[in-house]
Amino acid sequence: MRRLRIGLLGCGTVGGGFVQLVAAERDRIRARFGLDLDIVRILVRDLEKERAGVHRALLTTSALDVIDAGCDLVVEAIGGVHTAGTLVRRAIERGCDIVTANKALLAAAGRELFHAAAARGVTIGFEASVCGGVPVVGALRRGLAGDTIESITGILNGTCNYVLTRMERGFPFADAVVHAQERGFAEADPSLDLSGEDAAQKLRILAEVAFDAPVRRERVRGIGEQTRGKLIAEARRVAGGVELIVEPREDARFAHVVDEQNAVIIRGRAVGDVWLSGRGAGSMPTAAALLADVLECGDASRRSLAATPVAAAGAAA
Amino acid sequence: MRRLRIGLLGCGTVGGGFVQLVAAERDRIRARFGLDLDIVRILVRDLEKERAGVHRALLTTSALDVIDAGCDLVVEAIGGVHTAGTLVRRAIERGCDIVTANKALLAAAGRELFHAAAARGVTIGFEASVCGGVPVVGALRRGLAGDTIESITGILNGTCNYVLTRMERGFPFADAVVHAQERGFAEADPSLDLSGEDAAQKLRILAEVAFDAPVRRERVRGIGEQTRGKLIAEARRVAGGVELIVEPREDARFAHVVDEQNAVIIRGRAVGDVWLSGRGAGSMPTAAALLADVLECGDASRRSLAATPVAAAGAAA
Repeated sequence: MRRLRIGLLGCGTVGGGFVQLVAAERDRIRARFGLDLDIVRILVRDLEKERAGVHRALLTTSALDVIDAGCDLVVEAIGGVHTAGTLVRRAIERGCDIVTANKALLAAAGRELFHAAAARGVTIGFEASVCGGVPVVGALRRGLAGDTIESITGILNGTCNYVLTRMERGFPFADAVVHAQERGFAEADPSLDLSGEDAAQKLRILAEVAFDAPVRRERVRGIGEQTRGKLIAEARRVAGGVELIVEPREDARFAHVVDEQNAVIIRGRAVGDVWLSGRGAGSMPTAAALLADVLECGDASRRSLAATPVAAAGAAA
Repeated sequence: MRRLRIGLLGCGTVGGGFVQLVAAERDRIRARFGLDLDIVRILVRDLEKERAGVHRALLTTSALDVIDAGCDLVVEAIGGVHTAGTLVRRAIERGCDIVTANKALLAAAGRELFHAAAARGVTIGFEASVCGGVPVVGALRRGLAGDTIESITGILNGTCNYVLTRMERGFPFADAVVHAQERGFAEADPSLDLSGEDAAQKLRILAEVAFDAPVRRERVRGIGEQTRGKLIAEARRVAGGVELIVEPREDARFAHVVDEQNAVIIRGRAVGDVWLSGRGAGSMPTAAALLADVLECGDASRRSLAATPVAAAGAAA
């Protein structure tokens, strides 16, 4: 049984969900993948806070306790750009694989981090950063990698979609935003969602994965009192590169995508339109995406040892 | 630039599509993945037949010319169980990775082939065997691997869906079958499709990937003159294992899935319902799925060299 030592940065909604999910899935994963998941340290702000199902002895308020604990892999679940970026860089230097749901960090510093990871021979998993539990990043990186992608069109922000769904049902914009906040779909300051910027960050990540071309134009509009339809994000090939658009639109294909659901249509030259949809956010869907990336890191190292004669020779020597 | 030497078994609808797609995507793949795809030999029945875009010098009527050509990877596109099985076994013994769209072979001999592949340290890619270009196998194997799957429900046979769509529009069953044959969606003998057995084979493959449990019950019914609704395939957890059902049903969730489209809802304990749909068959979508698996094999061997200290040490020694 191989052991995968995991350091966890953050134990809020996403990190706490990850701890829960690892506990729930550990036996299945041992049996199925021959992989023993071991969360060895957890960075938190407050050591005294009650956290169901979390061993207090694992908690620390020092990020270096986590990163320097000899982990194979670090799950970054603190969010934000600056502190998260510093810690991820340090973990990469230490030779840890990284798994993150942090779209803001990837949008701000993705290229630099991927270069650093490649130079150090580690991977960055980021399935959880777009569309929560819907495996759209994996579909682009692997399942559709054989095809030239022509466009990506979808609903990438569950908060806006929830608000717009309430408005379709007759509620005023301001009330719909309050409903979203009450349901936990919107932050106290919902401007990142409502301005379209959150959808744009996700769209940039998908475009980076899908296209071998620079962004030529970008237009981002959010939602407000007068908005009808859905907030649609679209990336498509144009002369010399890619165009990114986030704007409210009427699009009959997405009419049945309601509440906090996300949906994406990926158009490939050979495969035609492939549709993926599901819950785009929330603690457990996001945790499931993080865990899938953790398993992929674990599986990749197992495969590398099993499948390459060079590796086998090295191991025997 | 790494070179990936590919042997291709079969150059019909699927194999011919694969040759076309490799030609169309070669430059993009060289730039994107640093991988030079090289189809070194192609097994055909008839050397004289005109094949657009295929170099005649690559063709052979001897399977051993392909398998013993020192390929890294063999793409099996001849279909059927016996010959295909013999050739795949031999290619595995030679240390080739395998990529196949052959659901009948996997349904008949999947376990044995996967064991042989694991023992030899090679992989079998089979994304193309279910739902054509829709990456549902990858979603189960990777993107949703962190979650316990509770059920898989979907339309897995495009021929039946095409026939049932025509019947909804008022055509008699027999005419609808002829239409499907004229459009190339149904074989001259369409009984494998219409009996539900094709959908059942695909469902068995998905169930094998998704569940860690034996099949306890299986019920397969096809379509006929009196059928209404859709032909739905469902796999779900029951006491002590998994139940597989293929039968015509009215299911509003699939009402908008028409013609030859495929669609699957995967229900995970943590992620909830994830929906995937798209073109489930056809030359180019299937070729795109084959090529995605080819790239995954190529990428896995690259990653293994880059990412593991053991491999690096072995390469240096």
